[in-house]
This record gives sequence, structure tokens and C-alpha cells, in this order.
Amino acid sequence: MRDVAVVGIGMNDFGELWKKSLRTIWAESAFAALSDAGVDSVDLITIGCMSPGLFVGQEHLSSVLADELGMAGVPASRVESACASGGLALRTGFAEVASGLSDTVLVTGVEKMTDVDGADATYALGTAADQEWEGFHGITFPGLYAMLAVAHMEKYGTTSEQLAAVAVKNHANGLLNPHAQYHLKVSVEDVLESTMVADPLHLFDCSPVTDGAAAVVLTTVERAKELSGDRPVVTITGSGLATDTITLANREDLTELAAVRLAAERAYKMAGRKPEDLHVVEVHDCFTIAEVMATEAIGLFDPGYGASAVEDGLTSLQGKIPVNPSGGLKSKGHPVGATGVAQAAEIVTQLRGEAGQRQVEGATIGLAQNMGGSGGSSIVHILEVAS
Amino acid sequence: MRDVAVVGIGMNDFGELWKKSLRTIWAESAFAALSDAGVDSVDLITIGCMSPGLFVGQEHLSSVLADELGMAGVPASRVESACASGGLALRTGFAEVASGLSDTVLVTGVEKMTDVDGADATYALGTAADQEWEGFHGITFPGLYAMLAVAHMEKYGTTSEQLAAVAVKNHANGLLNPHAQYHLKVSVEDVLESTMVADPLHLFDCSPVTDGAAAVVLTTVERAKELSGDRPVVTITGSGLATDTITLANREDLTELAAVRLAAERAYKMAGRKPEDLHVVEVHDCFTIAEVMATEAIGLFDPGYGASAVEDGLTSLQGKIPVNPSGGLKSKGHPVGATGVAQAAEIVTQLRGEAGQRQVEGATIGLAQNMGGSGGSSIVHILEVAS
Repeated sequence: MRDVAVVGIGMNDFGELWKKSLRTIWAESAFAALSDAGVDSVDLITIGCMSPGLFVGQEHLSSVLADELGMAGVPASRVESACASGGLALRTGFAEVASGLSDTVLVTGVEKMTDVDGADATYALGTAADQEWEGFHGITFPGLYAMLAVAHMEKYGTTSEQLAAVAVKNHANGLLNPHAQYHLKVSVEDVLESTMVADPLHLFDCSPVTDGAAAVVLTTVERAKELSGDRPVVTITGSGLATDTITLANREDLTELAAVRLAAERAYKMAGRKPEDLHVVEVHDCFTIAEVMATEAIGLFDPGYGASAVEDGLTSLQGKIPVNPSGGLKSKGHPVGATGVAQAAEIVTQLRGEAGQRQVEGATIGLAQNMGGSGGSSIVHILEVAS
Repeated sequence: MRDVAVVGIGMNDFGELWKKSLRTIWAESAFAALSDAGVDSVDLITIGCMSPGLFVGQEHLSSVLADELGMAGVPASRVESACASGGLALRTGFAEVASGLSDTVLVTGVEKMTDVDGADATYALGTAADQEWEGFHGITFPGLYAMLAVAHMEKYGTTSEQLAAVAVKNHANGLLNPHAQYHLKVSVEDVLESTMVADPLHLFDCSPVTDGAAAVVLTTVERAKELSGDRPVVTITGSGLATDTITLANREDLTELAAVRLAAERAYKMAGRKPEDLHVVEVHDCFTIAEVMATEAIGLFDPGYGASAVEDGLTSLQGKIPVNPSGGLKSKGHPVGATGVAQAAEIVTQLRGEAGQRQVEGATIGLAQNMGGSGGSSIVHILEVAS
């Protein structure tokens, strides 16, 4: 198996981009990544996108987007695992380069979510849950995560103030990220006084609906060293996937994200790393409770200690282990298919030492954790500066 | 790169399966493939499916279907390239085993197309075309392929009778395939007298709407030999992907499927084979003209000679190079996401010598060609009996 490096990254400015199409924002990020990598051809384009069928009425993005880039002819593929589609695209590109089937892969993620109205967006997102046992009975994602939050509160005494602290931290980080959807400072009071969406989750406990795209270029470590000049070469040392029951009703324990734990264990094993080795982490904070549970599942904190860790500042930019320096899904935005690639782009930015005001000093090992549905799937990657 | 073998295959009986859900037909084929392989655990499940969001309102099949199989926890992914989604799933599993990331992969394809009405199915399928430049202006797939047919007729003198001969041959083959949707003998007159759908394509020039699923189990050649006993071990020796412009308006030549040609060239190169080496072929006959153009693009016949080759019997079961012994999409049915995997399953059946009345005698090298949209993407695999 060949060693794989990330040699270029690109993102568009996330937001509600009424004047731009899926193709346009995707191409912006793809061109940025190719330019950053210094390459003008690739062996494969892979695209993470959750539901272009429901959001923009267009499947077959492999052909649509290779063509949009002026690269018709080049192999291309789309992958989907709900909101973990971006992480799955990264895995797909990793396997292609590791196997030797491809030398250079453009890994991308995209979602255009604001071309439909709110109800249709809620329906489209709901297809990530079990439609037969959850969706058709009326529940949507805020309700599913609210049940996880209630269980966590019941078992561990997690408080609404602690959940609010996640939003406060991530919005503070997002202020420092020029690509973020929101540049907006919020307080614990702001969160607690915002509209209740699904008790105990307020509006500011929820990530937004976002148009956005992100891209990274993968190649062999050898070629990456040739291309990178004086910049650090960032390698992917661990890649782990896992699933869990699709419906919450079949979970043995609502306070643990088993797919995240399994995916992280697989990634740690491949990388020969453990949670204590990490310097910077991006996790899938689609809701504030999701960040808390994800940090527990990847082993940063013991079960039940994820919420107090945020409140105590352990995961802030200057804390023991900074989590979501990009602003996370909460503040950077959550274009669902793009998120997993954007997380990897942030970790690469941090490991290169190019994160500006949000730089985690001396970071050389990072982790990106992406998740689908209410934890029905998860994908974890570990990235490191090559020695 | 490790050598990869197909060690198990499974299919459900294709058809309009009103009483079965996507999950059920998928699980039928998955269990059949696992049983055929003699394995009860896998490292990855990959699922080719074009549009579960539009056809059944359910994305996130990675979680849904791993769970349905009683394998929640196991890594899973879904891939999509319109009607080439099944071929893309095969490529994904191939890369995973070749790289060493996974030792055993369950590669599956599925589509449940009859849970929506005809207009909604037409819309869903239409998302494989360029919605901005084709779909929104009213054209659907029979119209797109009719334009290809007209161009081919104009340039090469291809006739409606020759196209009808494709349907006659494939329906004759489908009579011998117990999994086929139709067991129905048709004559050239039957085809020419059937309803005109989009001139020059009659109803019997078109593949049907189908519910179906197919699965194959991939593993290393070494493990396959242990598992296979006296049965021949079938290896994947070539895998090629390609794209073309999504819209026909941007093609330089409407009489050639460039993505198919490119994908085939890549697969031949990897396998070290040429068209003359093949003993049996499955191509993507979503319309009769598609089979003609595909056989030209993969190099079985010179451009312009694909149609007369069918009429002359060269591609029939006893011909020089049998094409679509399974009955093809035309007679076996075309559950779009399943088709690419079903094609591979047929080639494996042939190479094992287990095809019964439709057996191509002495076949040891075969090719499967899967296609998305009006040729916007294509995926070609070459399979061979291991020495």
C-alpha cells in the first residue's frame, strides 16, 4: 500500500449563495485546490454529495462536474453517506492512490441546499434518517439529536449551558475563518435565549443550511514532496469507516456514538496513534450535542466528560486539545456533502501552519471526524506532517 | 497492488416487485452472494444505487443496508454514476482489495424503481442527463438515445431492422435466464410494430423500468482459491473509468460513445488484453442503439459495423463473440443501480461454466461495460479465469 499525501486544498466561501449554482461553487473549490497543489491534471475526480437529486434535481455529478472543470474524459465518481459523504470521498481517493490505481486524485465535496424551500430541505435532509421507522412518522434531525441530548443529560448531568458553550467556542473560532458562513460572536445567553427548535436544542445549538464546496488533491508522498517546495507535506496515516443502526430505536445506548468510536479505533490502529497524540481535531458538530458525543467517541474525553471539557475551555483554540478551530459545522456552515472534505482541508491548513489567527501552535498530528445521519455512519481520518 | 477475485455472486429475480422493498431485494442478493462465496463477514459493503432519494425517499443506504444485513458496525459506502453506479461499486471494491485496505468486500447494486409513478420515474431517470441544458427543456432519455440513433443511421446507414435484431437476440437470451424480468420471445416485426416512443426507437428498442439487486463478493486471489474448491477462480484483471460531456450538445461526434472507448482502453491496458481476446461480453443496452454503439466503442467491431454484426448473428449466443448472453438490460431488466453488478455476475457465471442453457462454451475471458446517462460516464471491467 502506497503512502498518500494531501498536496492541495481549496474551499469556496460558505453561505447562502443565491447567485451561484452547484457547478459554480464546486468549480471554485476544485480550481483552488488544483492551483494550491500546482497540478493541472488528475487521474480521478471523486465527489462527495448527499442528495443533488433532491436539492437541485441533478444526479450523475461525475459527468456533470468533470465536464464543468473542462476535464470530460477523466474518470470521475460520486459517493454518498449522507452528511459523511465528504469523508467518504476522501476515503475513496485514498484507496485509489494507496492501491496504485490512480496517482493523483481530486477529492471534492459539495452541497447546494438553498435552491429549495425550507420544507423541501428538511425533507431532503430527513432521507439520511430511517424513512420507514423515523421519517415517515414525522421526526426530523433536530428531534433525533434532541433525543440523544436528553439521554446524555439524563445519564451524565450534561447541561444546556454546557451545550451552549460548544456554540460559543465554535462561533468564536469561525470569526477567524474567512471562509465561514457566520462571522458572529455569540454568548451562552444568546444561545439559551434563541428559539427552541427541539427541546433541549435551541436555534444556536443547530448548524445551518449552507451552500458550499471543498476540495483536496491527493497524490503519493514522493510526488507531494516534489510539488511542495518548502511547505510541510501532510500525509493521511489513518482512515476508518463504520456504520451503526440507522434508526435510534435499535441502538443499545443513546449516549454513545458507536460508529464514531469504531471508525476512530480503525483509524488510530492504521496510523499507530492514540487520542493523546493529537494536536488538533475537527469533529462533526451538526448539533452542539454531536460535538460533545463525538469528542467522547474518538477518545479525547471519557464518556460523560465531553460537555464539561468544553465549558472548562479544554477544546478552545488555546486549550489542551483544540476542537473545531475552523468554526465547525456550527459557524463555518454545513453544506452536507462538502463538510468532510472541508474538515480535512482545515486540518491540512493547521498542520501546514497556515491557519493565521486560528492557528494551533505546533500542530503536526490532526484528526477529522465526519458523520452521517444520527450516527448511522462515520468516517475518521488521521493526518500528519511527513517526517 | 494485490490481485482481486470475485468469489461469490447473487441476484434477485428482476421484475416489477410491488410486494418487496428496496431493503428486501437488496438483502436477497447480498445473502445469495455471501452464501455463494461461503463467507459470513466482510470488511466493507459498497452499494451502487442511482437515486434512492428520488425513487424511494431514502438516502444513506450505507447505514440502512449494513443494518438490514445484520451487520451494523461494518464499514459501508454508496456510490453513484447514474446507470453506471453498479460498475462504480465494483471499481470501489476493487480498489479497496487491491490496496490492502480491505480483504473482503461485498459489492452490491440496487434500484427500486416502481414505488413511484411513471412520470416521477421518468423525472428521476432524467436527472442522469444535464438538467440545465437538456432536462429542463423537456427531453428525456428515449429522446436522447433517439438522437444518437438518427446520427448513427445518417452516417452509417444503420436500419431500424438492425436495431430490432438487438432486441430479438437479447430477448432470446433472456428466455434462458431465470433471473430475467421478461421471458418473452420477440420478432423483428414485433419490435417494428410496437409503439413508437421516440422516433426511430420503438417500445421494444427500450429497456424497462425494473426493481432489482445484484451482488458480488471480492477478495484476494489467494483467499479466493481457498474458498473456491473445484470451481474456477475468476479475477478482475482490468478496470477502466471515463467520462464524457454530460450534454449531447457538446459532443463532437454523436456516433461515438467516447467515454466507453476511453474506459475500455484503460481496462484493456491494465489487463494486457485486446478486443480479440474476449470470449463473452455484457454491454449496456439501455436502448438497442446503445448496444450497437457500445460494441463499436469497446472495439468488437469497426465504427458503423456494430448493427450489421447483430443482424449477421455475430453477437448471438452461438456467434463469433456473444454479447449480452444474460438477456441484457433489454430482457433481463434494468434496475439502474444494480445493472453494473448484474453484468459482472453474468460474466462470472459464464467464466465458471455455470450458465446452463445460455453458456458460452469455453469462455475464460469476459468484459462488462456499464454506462451512465447518454454516455456521460462509463465503467469497463475485464474478468478472467485465474490460471
